Amino acid sequence: MATKLSGKMVIGQSGGPTVVINQSLVGAVLAARKQSNITGILGARHGIAGILKEDFIDLTTQSVEQLELVATTPAAALGSVRLKPGQAECEKVFEVFRKHDVRYFFYIGGNDSAETAHIIAEMAKQANYDFCTVHIPKTIDNDLKVTDHCPGYASAARFVALAFMGDDRDNRALEGIKVNVVMGRNAGFLTAASALARQEERDGPHLIYLPERVFDVDKFKQDVRAVVAKYGRCVVAASEGISDKDGNPISTTGERDSHGNIQLSGTGALGDTLAALVKEAFPGQKVRVRADTFGYLQRSFPTIVSAVDAKEARMVGDYAVNHAVATGEPGSVAIRRLSSKPYSSECFITPLSSVAREATAMKDEYINAAGNDVTQAWLDYVAPLVGELPKMGRL
Amino acid sequence: MATKLSGKMVIGQSGGPTVVINQSLVGAVLAARKQSNITGILGARHGIAGILKEDFIDLTTQSVEQLELVATTPAAALGSVRLKPGQAECEKVFEVFRKHDVRYFFYIGGNDSAETAHIIAEMAKQANYDFCTVHIPKTIDNDLKVTDHCPGYASAARFVALAFMGDDRDNRALEGIKVNVVMGRNAGFLTAASALARQEERDGPHLIYLPERVFDVDKFKQDVRAVVAKYGRCVVAASEGISDKDGNPISTTGERDSHGNIQLSGTGALGDTLAALVKEAFPGQKVRVRADTFGYLQRSFPTIVSAVDAKEARMVGDYAVNHAVATGEPGSVAIRRLSSKPYSSECFITPLSSVAREATAMKDEYINAAGNDVTQAWLDYVAPLVGELPKMGRL
Repeated sequence: MATKLSGKMVIGQSGGPTVVINQSLVGAVLAARKQSNITGILGARHGIAGILKEDFIDLTTQSVEQLELVATTPAAALGSVRLKPGQAECEKVFEVFRKHDVRYFFYIGGNDSAETAHIIAEMAKQANYDFCTVHIPKTIDNDLKVTDHCPGYASAARFVALAFMGDDRDNRALEGIKVNVVMGRNAGFLTAASALARQEERDGPHLIYLPERVFDVDKFKQDVRAVVAKYGRCVVAASEGISDKDGNPISTTGERDSHGNIQLSGTGALGDTLAALVKEAFPGQKVRVRADTFGYLQRSFPTIVSAVDAKEARMVGDYAVNHAVATGEPGSVAIRRLSSKPYSSECFITPLSSVAREATAMKDEYINAAGNDVTQAWLDYVAPLVGELPKMGRL
Repeated sequence: MATKLSGKMVIGQSGGPTVVINQSLVGAVLAARKQSNITGILGARHGIAGILKEDFIDLTTQSVEQLELVATTPAAALGSVRLKPGQAECEKVFEVFRKHDVRYFFYIGGNDSAETAHIIAEMAKQANYDFCTVHIPKTIDNDLKVTDHCPGYASAARFVALAFMGDDRDNRALEGIKVNVVMGRNAGFLTAASALARQEERDGPHLIYLPERVFDVDKFKQDVRAVVAKYGRCVVAASEGISDKDGNPISTTGERDSHGNIQLSGTGALGDTLAALVKEAFPGQKVRVRADTFGYLQRSFPTIVSAVDAKEARMVGDYAVNHAVATGEPGSVAIRRLSSKPYSSECFITPLSSVAREATAMKDEYINAAGNDVTQAWLDYVAPLVGELPKMGRL
């Protein structure tokens, strides 16, 4: 593009929030303020839904102090949405953009949001409307393609690791079998982060079940019995997305969102199902079995943010704006890991089509042969993202 | 008592752990090391169960560095137990104490543990065995009589407040009705701490249901409809112990522990029941309803400890030992609040019989007239214990 695009920008947040999604928002807004050809900054309330209703917040003049407070606050400050716009809605989005002289659109979200951004970018091209759309990655599921990892993931992983550290001490104090259900519809990244809770060989979680492997009820019962025989107790990490060999979720309420995804979170059904299975595994014996479902705290609990995550979430927002202004080319921001020790990373741009729609899952090398634990390669991947964890004392 | 008791001490931990229960342990152990007439310090593994099996850890010589690491680690480092000893078991306990020349017994726990301590103290008196038992208070439920509040409570309350702060932001971003189930069998102290999450008038939790008030299903539906009409969303805090007018728990698995208490935690049943009721409240409408049960994270999650709680948990352990050595009199340590602004407190001794068995619940002045919220008096009571909370930014 010979001349730089000049006009307003719209930024929106979409999908399940994270504790650092506002870092990306603030990173983008502060970068845009330095660009003279971005003539105004509009925040869309509740993503695409807000654009359709022309429900914008002017972010051109908010104080930096206020924005910095927003940056460290969990959950989408603009409001979020789970809406996959159809053809008619995309056309309406364009109408709004033209009306407000919007030339830049930044959408912070997961693969569904990347798809929305992609559709809008394609429409702009066909309409010969000079316009640039950049997708800013965000998801606690860590399931976006191309990127090494996704902003939002490491903090949720840190919550899960801390939760298992404390819960394992609790289970050691009052012995029994404890099942914890972790978020992650189709990818086990978040559940697998529970392994970071282990500091000594006897520490839990002792078993980790991921959606990347078939969940076999009989094998599960055998696994739990074996751990109890060895340690007198057992802590289990189970992904909410575990399914049987036919691909049926082990437990679900049957409700679906507007993307057609089955509701797995916001219910204790799977935990209770697994607890019942554990009791079956010890017929005639009085065993103490408890199940917790970590739920929405994984993506919203304040004060546990990973420092790497906060920094990178800011970085991808900043990079998206600078890339858009410099090149005018649509794309999705991705993260390349340069080094694990000491950890360092950089941003790059990948085509929207490479991230949109399809998600990814854990590599085989991260999962053990028995399909009930992770490998050292996984720990090497995830530990630098989550950061140092408190040392557990013991007598 | 004319001459000070001289001999070994046993210390044990009992009941549901907390994140500061080890502060009390370490406070007592370090105080005991300064007392020349405490000739040895034995930690009982899993409380009374460990004493019966003579399963002790020698705490006389552990390094202070190791003990300080234990102090900041969640959950009973000695192991805990839910065992109410009978007459025969208490006699066996004495046999073990005599055998090891144990003259001091410190039991860290709730009202059930105070009762155990009381029974043992009475037996010692009848047996003319020179011996001193002191109960060191601990419970996230905050339901001990006499004391202003219980060590362990404030940190759990801080977890609950932080969880609601983040979750309310999440609910604001993706609007709907969210129900969070909080621990607290018969007392609403922990559920009521959710009110600390509010920083502005529209912030959740918008409704708070405590076990001190009858839970009426129709009233609940009306309440939720009214909040949704006002704010377009609703966050509910519900105690796991809420019951109907006949005293029946709204939801339970029916399992009981050895104290005869019904199992309420470690299951998502109540959350799912309440979510189903919310859906019934909006017949024919598509409403987004989610429920989380905070579960064991409330008592075990590391890194969120209240500074006041950590300090006081240490203080009660230290006080118990110094009191026992100085007076030889049995009792339970309690906390007296001297001032709320700035916060200060001191320890005193109350008879074991005044704390044993019966628990307490929230005062009427802490609950609003409608029975679905707390009062300013409650916030004045709880805020200094929980400490400063992060400020939530907003656009």
